[in-house]
Amino acid sequence: LGAFHQVAQAEVLINATNGTGSLAALEAAGEAALEGKILLDIANPLDFSQGMPPTLSVKDTDSLAEQIQRRFPALKVVKTLNTMNVMLMVNPGNLQNGDHTVFVSGDDAAARAAVKGYLQSWFGWREDRILDLGALETARGTEMLLPLWLRLFGVFGNAPFQFKVVS
Amino acid sequence: LGAFHQVAQAEVLINATNGTGSLAALEAAGEAALEGKILLDIANPLDFSQGMPPTLSVKDTDSLAEQIQRRFPALKVVKTLNTMNVMLMVNPGNLQNGDHTVFVSGDDAAARAAVKGYLQSWFGWREDRILDLGALETARGTEMLLPLWLRLFGVFGNAPFQFKVVS
Repeated sequence: LGAFHQVAQAEVLINATNGTGSLAALEAAGEAALEGKILLDIANPLDFSQGMPPTLSVKDTDSLAEQIQRRFPALKVVKTLNTMNVMLMVNPGNLQNGDHTVFVSGDDAAARAAVKGYLQSWFGWREDRILDLGALETARGTEMLLPLWLRLFGVFGNAPFQFKVVS
Repeated sequence: LGAFHQVAQAEVLINATNGTGSLAALEAAGEAALEGKILLDIANPLDFSQGMPPTLSVKDTDSLAEQIQRRFPALKVVKTLNTMNVMLMVNPGNLQNGDHTVFVSGDDAAARAAVKGYLQSWFGWREDRILDLGALETARGTEMLLPLWLRLFGVFGNAPFQFKVVS
């Protein structure tokens, strides 16, 4: 009930749960509390059950973001920020003055536009480094970046690193 | 027999076949012809059989590069260049003066070092933009970049784009 009330009062929700627990967490909040809200989905479907490195519990023909959207059609799911360390999510300027890329995927164009505004106003993302991929299906691509991210973590360790799309 | 002789005389091999045909192509060349050679594996395991966008025929817990290495243990498989358009592979300077990343994965450190030299001397890659990921297992990460690459192609179309790892 506590979770329901907290979620019901929020304007925007952030799914920062473990990807394999995301659907259960949203179920606990309750469908009624989610109605019509934007969900910034920053989770990744990492499966640690077979050891390290983790694999993906959903991929290629589906994504966690799409699973959430199908289960809760009244939510406006926008996948973003899932391709980087948390310190860079909220402070992109800490690496190369913010000259790296954050991806945005979602089926609701107005929700994607709102999230692009939040990324700029809340966290200081540069508008020209926010890359709108379009439909939520494109989250298959950004979730499948995680296997490379994990291996780059093996190369860089705790030093900050990020993806940038150069064009 | 023609394929065997051509391959037998080569110093370095490049697997630029369709990923779903790579093993068959190498079988046609014959195991004896491959013995001890470096294979630059630039192929991707794209499966177009279910329509567009293609999915991956191997991923996450295995990769095409590892499948090739297991089948032909006397080859020195080095995965590289598979994450970009062919025009950028051979002419990285055509985009942002070459300021973007090429990944290298392989179990044989000397073969990885040789390939890093080829990337510089054959194609003009900047040494500081060649990112050595280590063991061939890391090719799971770079092959799984393709779903995002395909969706970026949807955004950029034929304009050149590339991944850069910022650190």
